[in-house]
Formats: sequence, C-alpha cells, structure tokens
Amino acid sequence: MPDHPTPHGATAISKARLEFLYDGIFAIAMTILVLELKVPDLQDHRSIGELLGALRHQGSTFFSYGLSLTMLGMFWYRHNRQYGHFRFITRSMLVLQLLQLGFAAFFPFCAALWGRYPTNNLSTLLYIGCIMAHQWCSLAQWAAANRAGAIEGDSVDATYKAIRKRNLVGSIILTAFFAYYLVQVLG
Amino acid sequence: MPDHPTPHGATAISKARLEFLYDGIFAIAMTILVLELKVPDLQDHRSIGELLGALRHQGSTFFSYGLSLTMLGMFWYRHNRQYGHFRFITRSMLVLQLLQLGFAAFFPFCAALWGRYPTNNLSTLLYIGCIMAHQWCSLAQWAAANRAGAIEGDSVDATYKAIRKRNLVGSIILTAFFAYYLVQVLG
Amino acid sequence: MPDHPTPHGATAISKARLEFLYDGIFAIAMTILVLELKVPDLQDHRSIGELLGALRHQGSTFFSYGLSLTMLGMFWYRHNRQYGHFRFITRSMLVLQLLQLGFAAFFPFCAALWGRYPTNNLSTLLYIGCIMAHQWCSLAQWAAANRAGAIEGDSVDATYKAIRKRNLVGSIILTAFFAYYLVQVLG
Amino acid sequence: MPDHPTPHGATAISKARLEFLYDGIFAIAMTILVLELKVPDLQDHRSIGELLGALRHQGSTFFSYGLSLTMLGMFWYRHNRQYGHFRFITRSMLVLQLLQLGFAAFFPFCAALWGRYPTNNLSTLLYIGCIMAHQWCSLAQWAAANRAGAIEGDSVDATYKAIRKRNLVGSIILTAFFAYYLVQVLG
Repeated sequence: MPDHPTPHGATAISKARLEFLYDGIFAIAMTILVLELKVPDLQDHRSIGELLGALRHQGSTFFSYGLSLTMLGMFWYRHNRQYGHFRFITRSMLVLQLLQLGFAAFFPFCAALWGRYPTNNLSTLLYIGCIMAHQWCSLAQWAAANRAGAIEGDSVDATYKAIRKRNLVGSIILTAFFAYYLVQVLG
Repeated sequence: MPDHPTPHGATAISKARLEFLYDGIFAIAMTILVLELKVPDLQDHRSIGELLGALRHQGSTFFSYGLSLTMLGMFWYRHNRQYGHFRFITRSMLVLQLLQLGFAAFFPFCAALWGRYPTNNLSTLLYIGCIMAHQWCSLAQWAAANRAGAIEGDSVDATYKAIRKRNLVGSIILTAFFAYYLVQVLG
Repeated sequence: MPDHPTPHGATAISKARLEFLYDGIFAIAMTILVLELKVPDLQDHRSIGELLGALRHQGSTFFSYGLSLTMLGMFWYRHNRQYGHFRFITRSMLVLQLLQLGFAAFFPFCAALWGRYPTNNLSTLLYIGCIMAHQWCSLAQWAAANRAGAIEGDSVDATYKAIRKRNLVGSIILTAFFAYYLVQVLG
Repeated sequence: MPDHPTPHGATAISKARLEFLYDGIFAIAMTILVLELKVPDLQDHRSIGELLGALRHQGSTFFSYGLSLTMLGMFWYRHNRQYGHFRFITRSMLVLQLLQLGFAAFFPFCAALWGRYPTNNLSTLLYIGCIMAHQWCSLAQWAAANRAGAIEGDSVDATYKAIRKRNLVGSIILTAFFAYYLVQVLG
C-alpha cells in the first residue's frame, strides 16, 4: 500500500465547506417538506369537526412527512459520524458526495408524491429508490475514502470493515425492498 | 457520581455542526413563514382602499406571522444560551435535539393554520402544542445533559437547578394552556 | 465612562452564531425572492413572441426582483462591515438584531407586493417602510454597541461619529420618502 | 508592481462569511429547484400507468432539474477551488461575487422556464445566458484578484495564466452558444 499524504493548500477541497453545504441542504430539505402540508379551506372557520376531517384527509401526507423528517435526521446523524472519520476529501469522494446531495435534494418530491399516493407502487418505488441511492452513495464514499487512505485512526482496517458490514446490511435490505416494488411496477 | 470524561475523536458528535443544523433550520423556518402571506388580487391596481381591505382580510395571518417570528427568535436565543452551557453532546441529547428540530420545522404549518383559523380551537391547540413540545424537548435536553455531566461551569448543580426551575415554569404554563384547549376540542 | 469588560463564557451571546443566523436568513430571503417570478402558461410552446409578451407582462415584478436583490446584497455588505467593528454582542444589541432580521424576513413579501402593484402608493409605502425600519435597527444597534463599549479599535469615538453620520443621512432620506408616501396614502 | 499587503481588522471583508453566504445561496437554490416538480393529480390513486404517464409528461422538467442540479454542483466545486486561491477579498471582488450570486439566485427561475418550454429558443437563451453571466463573473473575479495581489502561492503568474486560459475557453464556448440562440430569437 502506498503512502497517503494529506492534500494541502489550494489543491485541497475544503471539508468544512462541504459539510456546510451538506448541512445547509439538509436543513432546507427538512424544512421545505412542510410546504407539502396544505392549510385546508373550511366552510365554517370555527368547526373543529370540519378541520379534523380535512387534516385526516391528508393523513398519509402527515405520515410521509413524519417518516421523511426522521429519515433525513438519521441520514444527517450518520453523515456526521462518517465525516468524523475522514481526514480529507478527494475528488472522487466529492463527486459521490454531490451525487448523494442530489438525491437528498430530490427527496422532498418523493416524500410529497408518496404522501399523496401511498398505495401506488410506483410512488413507493421512487421513495425507496431515493433512500437506497442515498445509502449506496454513502457506502461508495466509504470505499473511496478507504482506497485514498482518508480514514482516520489507528486501526483503520478493522474500523472500515465494521462500518462496511453495517452499511452493507442496510443497503441490501433497501435494495431487496426496491427490487420487490420494481417487480410489482414492471409486472 | 461517576467521572464524566469528554468524548473525543471520531466518536464525538460535532457540536458545531449540530448548532449549524439548528441555526439553518431556524433561519429557513423564520423566512418561509412569509410564504403564507399572499399578494392579493386587485381589480384596480392603484386603489389604496382595495389593497388595504385585502391586507386587513389577512389580518390574523399577519398577527400569527409576527407572533411566530417572535417565538422563533426567542427559541433561538434560548438555544444559544443553552448550548453555551454544554461541553459536549451525547447520543440521547442528539435524539432530543433532532426531535425538537422536527417540531421547529413543523411550526410554519401550525402558524399558517392558526393564522387562517384563529377562532378554531383545534388550530389553537396545534399551535400551542407545537410550542409546548418544543419546550419540553428543551427541558429534557437539560436533564440529559445534567445526567451525562455535559454542563460546563464551577457550580453545575446550582446552575442546573436555576435553569430547570425557570424552564419548568414555562413548560407548565404552556401545558396548562394546552390542556385547556384540549378540553375545548374534546368536549 | 465605566470600564467595559468583554463578556465571556456561558453568559456571552455567540457572535458567530448570530452572524450565521443573519447570513442564513439573507441567503434564504435572496433566494426565495425568485419564487415570485412565475413561469407563464403558453398556448404555443415554441412561440418566442408569446413568451416575451408574458415575461414583459411581469416586467415590474422583474424590476422589483432585481432591485430587492441589490438592496439585500447592500444590507449584507453593510452588516459585514458593522459586525467587523463589534467586539461582543449585548442583550439589547441582540434584540435589535432579531428585530432587524424580522424586517429582512418580511422583505420578500413587500418585494412581491410592490412588484405586482408598483403604482399603488400603499405597496410603495410598505416597501420603503420595510427598508427604513431595517436601516433604523442598524443605527440603533450602532448606538447600543457604543453605549456598551462593544466597538473595537483605537479611535472609537471618531469611528462611531463617522459611521453615525453616514447612517443618519441614509435613514433620514428613507424616512423622508416614507413620510411622502404616508401623506399620499392618508390623504 | 506595487506591494500588496493583506487588509486586516475591521476594514477587511470576512472571507468566511462571504463563502458562507455563497454556500447558503447554493444550498437553497439546489433545494428549491425541486419545487418546480409537481405532484400530479391522479384519477385512480393506485394506477401505475397513470402516474408514469403524468411523470413522463413532466419529462423535460425532470431533465432540466437533473442538469441544473449538476450545473450548480459544478459551480460550487469551482468556487471552492477558486476561493482556496484567494488570500483576501477586495471591494471589487465582493461586488463581482454579489453579482454572481444574483445570477445563481435567478437560476431556479431559468431552470423552471426551460424545463417547461425546452423547445422555445427564448427560454433556452435565458438558461444559457444565466450560466454564461455566472461564468464571466467568475473570470472577472480572477482578474480582480490578480490585480489586487489576492492570489496565494509561489508561482502566482503561472497559476493565474493557467486558470485564466481554462476559464476563458469555457466562457467563450458558452458565449458562442448564447450568440447562436440570440440570433435565433432576434431573427
């Protein structure tokens, strides 16, 4: 294995700014999810029953909202842990990161679509597909970081293998769900 | 009481990034509140009276906008004070923080709903409930920080007790209001 | 004049986080201004003339968009300069800053309203009023910083007087415009 | 060539805050692009064929979305590289940067317009024009930085010439496309 010096100076990609872009996109995605929840039009402004009925009618949108917010929170937490392990960011890690951010930015649309049509297999497929793609990007970034020697710590190999195993299990479960719904949509 | 060493290295949750996510979500929530204020459709583009009437018609939305902006500003100030006391962030504090951010992200919907239907007890209940839940998360985070030994300073116990008292009073008042409106809605 | 020690530790308001909140709200306000520009509905999708006509119809909205973006950019630049002079942030400076952020968050609504009804004196009054209020908050923050001894530098008094003069001129001009339109609206 | 001392203290423009504003505007622009993708209205909520047809109908909007996200990601990467070379920010660099941010904030509108009318030469002209203007601002900022002595490194002249060459090629290609569509629109 070759030596892996840390890139420095103007050639380096700023890890702080990349984390910042990630945090910014997540903060916005988590907040604009709420734009899908619509204030209903009521005939009787004081009627509790009418408002309750109108909100219940959007029930699946509220469920999708809650689940999607939780997913984004979990993604953010994992990213926080992941970037704590990286010493620097290479170009291929950056490309994977921007690709992953693309899926994160696309997620509010999938959440809105699935919230409106939860029983439609195609919207379920898109929702799971977006999460799955995000997850594979994360795994690929780990692999790219390992190849470039960007993982910090004394026992890099053991750390990396434990992380890869845990991430692979999640990725495979998501891919299985994705495949199931793909068969439903295609069949 | 056991020793409380500060977590370090890759195991630690980045306090700076968590503050950043919080600030980002608050900046966005404070700014997208404005999207609920609608530019009215006027027949006579130059008529001051017609525009004034149309804006007055949205009066309660403007009131809810102003109050909600003030609430978010106050929450932000308190969070600033709170995180000034924390030496590090544990996993349970993080979970409570993400839960709290969920309520903050949900707040613009509650503000829009209440702005449209200020005399509807259910929309009032949701508005107060969202603030109350945010407040309880804050209190729970203090308790979690205290248990984990994450509070900074010489006289931790006295500081914590003074803070807990002040926060409890606010939480109990909010819960009393919530209970009152819950009875109205259920009755 | 009393001694002005820098506040420190948990009692201090984080200047970095306040700048962050400011920058976040400005970034969002500058970006959501664009949501007021609507993609027109065309009969003939390929017709250049029809699209040009539809965009020209929104001409005043485009003008308001450009002007408002410029205003926000100028405000941001001035704030950058202002905070470069502050050593710390007191509670009253924070309150003024949050009030100012409230006007900044409200600005996209004023810009949208004025873009739609540029010949309506009330919408012009609101647009100028929002800028004027933002400007007065800035001046008040300078005064509060001066009183608290938060201005950095060797020749504080000379610096402050020069700044106050420049800011006062701007504030007075804006207030004169505001008064003119107020008379139009009331008369 | 005169000496170029680094500006310091309160006179300096905070490079960190300017990067922050840039990152914030980009995070938001990348995320609100998704608001142009609309959840379709379906008659049969479970019908895969109907949903697929409705999404295909928005095909060009999805294409514009993907391309625009990629463009913004590329711009961000280049800006990251660019600011890694700058030692400080002068006033003229700031003005160019704010102008560039104006084009970035305007980009979601161009993307939405072009996604809806991809065969309309005027919407294509606006889309390319916005990218071209952003690119020229970048080149002008390099030139301003070079003149002010703000470029970091040992071999500033060689670095600057290589960068200028690469940027010029991109700018000229974009301008050629812009000119082609301008002729189509005017003709």
